[in-house]
Amino acid sequence: MTDSPQRNEATEVPSTLDLGYARLDLDRARRTGDAEVIYGAGKSPEVVVELLRSLHEAHPDKVVLATRLSDETRHLVRQSISAARIDEVARTATVGEMPTPRGRVTIVSAGTSDAPVVREALVTTSVFGASVDVINDVGVAGLHRVLGVRDRLSTADCLIVVAGMEGALPSVVGGLTGVPLVAVPTSVGYGASFGGIAALLAMLNSCAPGVTVVNIDNGFGAGVFAARVARRAAPRAVEAARPTESMPSVQAPRS
Amino acid sequence: MTDSPQRNEATEVPSTLDLGYARLDLDRARRTGDAEVIYGAGKSPEVVVELLRSLHEAHPDKVVLATRLSDETRHLVRQSISAARIDEVARTATVGEMPTPRGRVTIVSAGTSDAPVVREALVTTSVFGASVDVINDVGVAGLHRVLGVRDRLSTADCLIVVAGMEGALPSVVGGLTGVPLVAVPTSVGYGASFGGIAALLAMLNSCAPGVTVVNIDNGFGAGVFAARVARRAAPRAVEAARPTESMPSVQAPRS
Amino acid sequence: MTDSPQRNEATEVPSTLDLGYARLDLDRARRTGDAEVIYGAGKSPEVVVELLRSLHEAHPDKVVLATRLSDETRHLVRQSISAARIDEVARTATVGEMPTPRGRVTIVSAGTSDAPVVREALVTTSVFGASVDVINDVGVAGLHRVLGVRDRLSTADCLIVVAGMEGALPSVVGGLTGVPLVAVPTSVGYGASFGGIAALLAMLNSCAPGVTVVNIDNGFGAGVFAARVARRAAPRAVEAARPTESMPSVQAPRS
Amino acid sequence: MTDSPQRNEATEVPSTLDLGYARLDLDRARRTGDAEVIYGAGKSPEVVVELLRSLHEAHPDKVVLATRLSDETRHLVRQSISAARIDEVARTATVGEMPTPRGRVTIVSAGTSDAPVVREALVTTSVFGASVDVINDVGVAGLHRVLGVRDRLSTADCLIVVAGMEGALPSVVGGLTGVPLVAVPTSVGYGASFGGIAALLAMLNSCAPGVTVVNIDNGFGAGVFAARVARRAAPRAVEAARPTESMPSVQAPRS
Amino acid sequence: MTDSPQRNEATEVPSTLDLGYARLDLDRARRTGDAEVIYGAGKSPEVVVELLRSLHEAHPDKVVLATRLSDETRHLVRQSISAARIDEVARTATVGEMPTPRGRVTIVSAGTSDAPVVREALVTTSVFGASVDVINDVGVAGLHRVLGVRDRLSTADCLIVVAGMEGALPSVVGGLTGVPLVAVPTSVGYGASFGGIAALLAMLNSCAPGVTVVNIDNGFGAGVFAARVARRAAPRAVEAARPTESMPSVQAPRS
Amino acid sequence: MTDSPQRNEATEVPSTLDLGYARLDLDRARRTGDAEVIYGAGKSPEVVVELLRSLHEAHPDKVVLATRLSDETRHLVRQSISAARIDEVARTATVGEMPTPRGRVTIVSAGTSDAPVVREALVTTSVFGASVDVINDVGVAGLHRVLGVRDRLSTADCLIVVAGMEGALPSVVGGLTGVPLVAVPTSVGYGASFGGIAALLAMLNSCAPGVTVVNIDNGFGAGVFAARVARRAAPRAVEAARPTESMPSVQAPRS
Amino acid sequence: MTDSPQRNEATEVPSTLDLGYARLDLDRARRTGDAEVIYGAGKSPEVVVELLRSLHEAHPDKVVLATRLSDETRHLVRQSISAARIDEVARTATVGEMPTPRGRVTIVSAGTSDAPVVREALVTTSVFGASVDVINDVGVAGLHRVLGVRDRLSTADCLIVVAGMEGALPSVVGGLTGVPLVAVPTSVGYGASFGGIAALLAMLNSCAPGVTVVNIDNGFGAGVFAARVARRAAPRAVEAARPTESMPSVQAPRS
Amino acid sequence: MTDSPQRNEATEVPSTLDLGYARLDLDRARRTGDAEVIYGAGKSPEVVVELLRSLHEAHPDKVVLATRLSDETRHLVRQSISAARIDEVARTATVGEMPTPRGRVTIVSAGTSDAPVVREALVTTSVFGASVDVINDVGVAGLHRVLGVRDRLSTADCLIVVAGMEGALPSVVGGLTGVPLVAVPTSVGYGASFGGIAALLAMLNSCAPGVTVVNIDNGFGAGVFAARVARRAAPRAVEAARPTESMPSVQAPRS
Repeated sequence: MTDSPQRNEATEVPSTLDLGYARLDLDRARRTGDAEVIYGAGKSPEVVVELLRSLHEAHPDKVVLATRLSDETRHLVRQSISAARIDEVARTATVGEMPTPRGRVTIVSAGTSDAPVVREALVTTSVFGASVDVINDVGVAGLHRVLGVRDRLSTADCLIVVAGMEGALPSVVGGLTGVPLVAVPTSVGYGASFGGIAALLAMLNSCAPGVTVVNIDNGFGAGVFAARVARRAAPRAVEAARPTESMPSVQAPRS
Repeated sequence: MTDSPQRNEATEVPSTLDLGYARLDLDRARRTGDAEVIYGAGKSPEVVVELLRSLHEAHPDKVVLATRLSDETRHLVRQSISAARIDEVARTATVGEMPTPRGRVTIVSAGTSDAPVVREALVTTSVFGASVDVINDVGVAGLHRVLGVRDRLSTADCLIVVAGMEGALPSVVGGLTGVPLVAVPTSVGYGASFGGIAALLAMLNSCAPGVTVVNIDNGFGAGVFAARVARRAAPRAVEAARPTESMPSVQAPRS
Repeated sequence: MTDSPQRNEATEVPSTLDLGYARLDLDRARRTGDAEVIYGAGKSPEVVVELLRSLHEAHPDKVVLATRLSDETRHLVRQSISAARIDEVARTATVGEMPTPRGRVTIVSAGTSDAPVVREALVTTSVFGASVDVINDVGVAGLHRVLGVRDRLSTADCLIVVAGMEGALPSVVGGLTGVPLVAVPTSVGYGASFGGIAALLAMLNSCAPGVTVVNIDNGFGAGVFAARVARRAAPRAVEAARPTESMPSVQAPRS
Repeated sequence: MTDSPQRNEATEVPSTLDLGYARLDLDRARRTGDAEVIYGAGKSPEVVVELLRSLHEAHPDKVVLATRLSDETRHLVRQSISAARIDEVARTATVGEMPTPRGRVTIVSAGTSDAPVVREALVTTSVFGASVDVINDVGVAGLHRVLGVRDRLSTADCLIVVAGMEGALPSVVGGLTGVPLVAVPTSVGYGASFGGIAALLAMLNSCAPGVTVVNIDNGFGAGVFAARVARRAAPRAVEAARPTESMPSVQAPRS
Repeated sequence: MTDSPQRNEATEVPSTLDLGYARLDLDRARRTGDAEVIYGAGKSPEVVVELLRSLHEAHPDKVVLATRLSDETRHLVRQSISAARIDEVARTATVGEMPTPRGRVTIVSAGTSDAPVVREALVTTSVFGASVDVINDVGVAGLHRVLGVRDRLSTADCLIVVAGMEGALPSVVGGLTGVPLVAVPTSVGYGASFGGIAALLAMLNSCAPGVTVVNIDNGFGAGVFAARVARRAAPRAVEAARPTESMPSVQAPRS
Repeated sequence: MTDSPQRNEATEVPSTLDLGYARLDLDRARRTGDAEVIYGAGKSPEVVVELLRSLHEAHPDKVVLATRLSDETRHLVRQSISAARIDEVARTATVGEMPTPRGRVTIVSAGTSDAPVVREALVTTSVFGASVDVINDVGVAGLHRVLGVRDRLSTADCLIVVAGMEGALPSVVGGLTGVPLVAVPTSVGYGASFGGIAALLAMLNSCAPGVTVVNIDNGFGAGVFAARVARRAAPRAVEAARPTESMPSVQAPRS
Repeated sequence: MTDSPQRNEATEVPSTLDLGYARLDLDRARRTGDAEVIYGAGKSPEVVVELLRSLHEAHPDKVVLATRLSDETRHLVRQSISAARIDEVARTATVGEMPTPRGRVTIVSAGTSDAPVVREALVTTSVFGASVDVINDVGVAGLHRVLGVRDRLSTADCLIVVAGMEGALPSVVGGLTGVPLVAVPTSVGYGASFGGIAALLAMLNSCAPGVTVVNIDNGFGAGVFAARVARRAAPRAVEAARPTESMPSVQAPRS
Repeated sequence: MTDSPQRNEATEVPSTLDLGYARLDLDRARRTGDAEVIYGAGKSPEVVVELLRSLHEAHPDKVVLATRLSDETRHLVRQSISAARIDEVARTATVGEMPTPRGRVTIVSAGTSDAPVVREALVTTSVFGASVDVINDVGVAGLHRVLGVRDRLSTADCLIVVAGMEGALPSVVGGLTGVPLVAVPTSVGYGASFGGIAALLAMLNSCAPGVTVVNIDNGFGAGVFAARVARRAAPRAVEAARPTESMPSVQAPRS
């Protein structure tokens, strides 16, 4: 049953699913062309499972993504929804067929401790319809590492650069190429890193023009944005040229 | 025995109850017309039970409210005071007869994770004597949801708008109606939300005129304020027109 | 004379111009495909004029942009370089032929006080090669204003959303469309807006997925980024369909 | 010409006035029942005068308020619009007939340095349709001053309590009465008052239940809110019982 | 063995006791006339026991105080040093004979949740040689409580005022009397109280002249200071007039 | 005419002087035994002069103090009130006979740039009835300077220690003596001193027990407090032993 | 296999070891002359063991250091790598032969609670090739302790001064000697110490010229820097004159 | 006349010069081996001139440095002390013979706007006895600039790296070489750079080991420290090999 009849009078399907404690926005896919997403933090395992099922039923032809899932929730999802794919590092679950990727997003990370954020960005980008290339552990204290992958940076349709501590990597990468670049500060660090604030401020003040920033540890937001940019830049489906090293839900070493 | 004889010389009843470690302000109801409240955070289960009993005995004809009760405290209250009503989501207990509601407060929330704050506001508003209407999960990223409930907003006597993350909902609601509006920032969010500071700042800077704000997660304070406004706006008791979906202490899914 | 012979050994032209107090990066255009820019804050009028001339001579076929120019500097540029175009609201100067625009960037602002940031974004976007559509003063406290321009939002290649105070507009716009969206917080506000921090935090915490953010008042950074996205999305030159209302350096009322 | 035809299809008048650099929300009065307001900070004197005239012409039967006017702007308004009333302490201008007041708002201030904020609240409350009673300079370091005006506090329909420095007055007043109370922190103070943050935090943490807060120095917001509460509490027009000492634009000593 | 022979050449006793990992300042009592104190936070139970014993042996005629003891440490001290007196609320231990009290310190607290800080102040004041009078739970939201104890405030030699949340009590007490007043902010509160910062700022900005402040939850520092002031004000020993309700290490209800 | 008849029913004199824009607390002297004070910041020269006159007339036998006077205000006071004593460094004015000093306060400063705060403390201490000894420029980077004045520190009745930058001096002085010590952070410094916050935090965290703190640059508050402590410690008038180098309003070099 | 062939074309050995999730910078020793280091925070025990082994194999003639190891990780390292030396207080592990020390670093600490940071600095300094002298617990509240070790301070090649709380020790030590001094703020303290921010700010604002600062609790960074300075100052190997009391991995009492 | 006879009993010369408002530490040169310095901020021109003269007379064979001189002060120094050398960019004055330089400090800056801080560091380093090499404008957004000067970095005895905005340069330089590196954050930037805090935090969190930091804009502190390190590393005087481009007080373009 819909709550807003006057806005969708010409459509047959309800735009909102009212579960009492929640009001799912079923109209979003139509408005924005994207998948539905469940933000799992602060939701009980049972609620996440119910929302995953409801959205999958409402959009059987689309993939549904759930993020920030606790250990307990990932366990219940695995037991309850056989079709769910769990990524233990990204802490995500996906249900439904993945879209055909268009365009390529390259994710670059400064250190191995940034892995959970990198994986969340990777899964999200795939779910939102772009292919992904990942380059890990090329922090600025060893410049030859990032200089050695310059070509992979320049041929991307959009870059996601993930870094904690002093957050300098986006400035260096942003100076090497003119590809649109989204910076993700991570909470990696201690003391005066203030849970990622140091990196966030550094990225907001980058001297490399054209760097944009998302919230601390927000691999999801970066993935959504980068996929949208990449899809527009390369509207045709990507041939499976470079096998992206990422989508299988491998049990990568938790850093 | 009273501590301040010179201020209440004309009254027979003591205005203060000295329990040694606490000094209950029994005069408050007379001064402000409102119920007594126990703030449970940082108090042992035994102390909360004793205070609930003492206040209920001192004001047998009024409802007494206790907020911010730990799991352990709610358990002991349930076992010790048979007449107590516990709300597991709001983390409150009430003892004594509820007042006849006057005026209507409408509580609007941005997301399902705001539920504990919404419930605390709901219970408090009821205890302070107004009826309540609750509209959940109408965040600004899906505007048709809030536009679809516009009439329920405009006919309230006071609005409580609860939101975490960027805290934008009060500005949107405040632009749709001239009803007095109290905004409650919640600690829902991560990274640069800083435990609710982002939402708090947004609400304090709302471009919609006439938005006031309470502390982060302070559903109680919003409820007290809104009930006082609603009671004054509608001094007669409310007929039981719209069954408020809230007062029974249902075990709503904990989000 | 070049400072880094090993990196440009195959090219004849020097990659760095050493003026003693400055070391211009003449290689940037080759690396990133973009124009040269002079950040004018903290530079004397004479230095800005010299840098504008040097860069224009080094890249006679490209446009050169100078930003954050003081009144005094704009005055001297106007007197010294007859080919310079000054924008009094954006506080910018440009010299050299503008590029043919590819793709369209739509800039949306919440209030009239955001005008200087809007204009800086507008000039920058044009200099970096995209066409621009501007929609002013559609703050969230009057939702019908932004709902009324929904179509112009959805057909853009990239959106720039500029807002001060509580910074809620990007969340509302981001919920209406799936176009990539760059949010620019402005220092418009007072008290607990803390010079734009409230808006910045709100935007970083936006509940609309896929919102990225630049520094406070950084219309320049948003323009660079958005132009890069738009150019990739629409690689062919834009026909002059909608006359963008902006590029002439009109003396718009200073808000 | 209207921007949002679908929302006002039944009305003849345009809901938005597009001045190019501004988009006036002429529909607000219909939606919220309140006057139009111009926020003068960051607007040139000429723009403020034009906006005052445009709004007065659009709503000839309503009062229009402009706030935060610079010395220069107040001077130009006085010269250009003979019907304008200027308040030099509040830094406001009003044009058009004042509404008949309904209900009474009592404004209480801690110190004489809070006067500009008190006056802005006073003018705004009057413009938004409630009568005003002002009690100045009753800071908590001399309690007998506030205890001496207890009756005037208890008979108000809404209270506005203005204080800088440690911001303790709302807690004291809020403990004396159950009248709805809006607290306004001011930037009065030095050192660790941080331009009003100390007072703001104190008010947000008030131990007196039912205190709500607006932004630092935001007398305007408090006035809008309080007038709305008072009008609802006392829907009939107020007889001219207590002559409010405030509305004439006297040249009160600038503190 | 002493580390600084050149400074104490005229004295026989070593001024420093070097335990390898610690260097006890045995000279302090001579310099300042006060007892030795062990700050227990971050020290292992074994270390605290060893330090208590070493200091008691070095100064057998003085009382030694240990503060901020964990549950585990208090347990070990109780088992290991039979002469130790433990205060479970203050989380302190004392060994050795208490000094004869001179002068009286009155400790006033705003709420029952401030009890651990109050008790730490109480124990410290006694150890540093003044008698103590405690007045609990007289927060400013019920002014008659503090007004009712005015005489006890005015006859003290020094006041310690303990409050969390908005920290308004010192301003009110400081306005009622000219007795030197030390304010102690506590971490009681939530949301925008920021672990006591709100109360700390309020106290630093108190409009009552002559209020000084110590660190958040620093009952110890307030006790040392107040005892020094009281001892000087009343150099003769205090007769046991008013039985202070505090020194016995009762198991007061933990709030 | 008095505003609070019920509190002063036994007294003939009014406790409050209502000037319209201000409500002077004439009862304070009776409650606290201290002089009246005018806080000059944010008050016009005319208002300061009127308040000085009113208070002097109300208490002809007491000294009245005005602090934080602008250059303009000091000029007008000098011209208007012939009996006024102006201190150009402290930025204060005093009118009326100074009290006979009891007890001695020693003021210690870290650097010459702290002079205005030192002088404000000096004048205030004298006005509040204690004699003053000043020791300037003994910062911790040259320890022999403070060690050389150890005796003058130990014989004081109360110490005021003034320091900016890292604010270390109170810890060093507090370790040398057991005299009650009030620390005053100053806004001297730059960069990460944040206008005195670094010094304030250092003083709040002093490892020397018994250090209390006042607001940044608050020489006035420190003076009130220290005078109260010193007067109690030495209730008899001080013989003119050490000529305090301070009270004459010399034109000390402005640092 | 190397990632950056163009930068090391003349060398046979790969400069980067790609473990998939990590990209070890094997070139660093060549560039900077220093050992390899593993930052253990946020890495699983298995990963730390693998990295230790890989680096030890790549550089069999050098010592490898791992820092910030959890209890669990230290346990696994001890079981898996028999040649590893564990320091339980510093929370470090080292594998491989220690370098011959050149120059001497003296580490000074303010309190016993700073021990973990002191030990991390000690181990790091030794690993980076300088000898170490440690002076513990000489906080500024007992100046004779630091004055008593003045000679040991002045003969060092570089000083590391470790302090929490108000962080005053570097200013005092820096005033006593002209030896280069690195200050390390620690998170020791409570309340307004804000996890070491108070000490950090104090050190950044030190009035003693020539004090530099590292991050809160960053004993590692201080050790690297100080060892580099000391090695340059004393290029010949240090004779084993003063047995440094530190290098054996004793089970020092955990403070 | 000396204030601390017991510490200098063996020396004839006074260790402290008491000017009344200041107490010059004449002993510092003996303790630390360095020149005297006058911090000019907040001191009147007359005072600076007097202090320069007094110190020059007390140490005729040493150079005296004054920093942070206002335009007015520099003007008066130039007129009053013919031997003074003024640096208009560094805002310094020096009097007396410069020491023979030992060791070399290389100063690297990210942008031309950092020039005043670079010059203050340059002058200070020279005054404290080391030679200086300056490399300007090699920010990380154009890496080839810093890579092109790699050899000059590696052969220095100590590095000073100056950067504003995101403060990334020290991490990049620190990864290229093992030379001791002092980072100086500058207040260059806007918005969320917060006057240099972003750069300061980035530098404190640098992933390059062995980076130490001084206060924002503190070129002086960095110069003192670096000179001390360089002098120890190269105890013999430096031959005039590379003409440092800096010491003459040229009128460099003010950026």
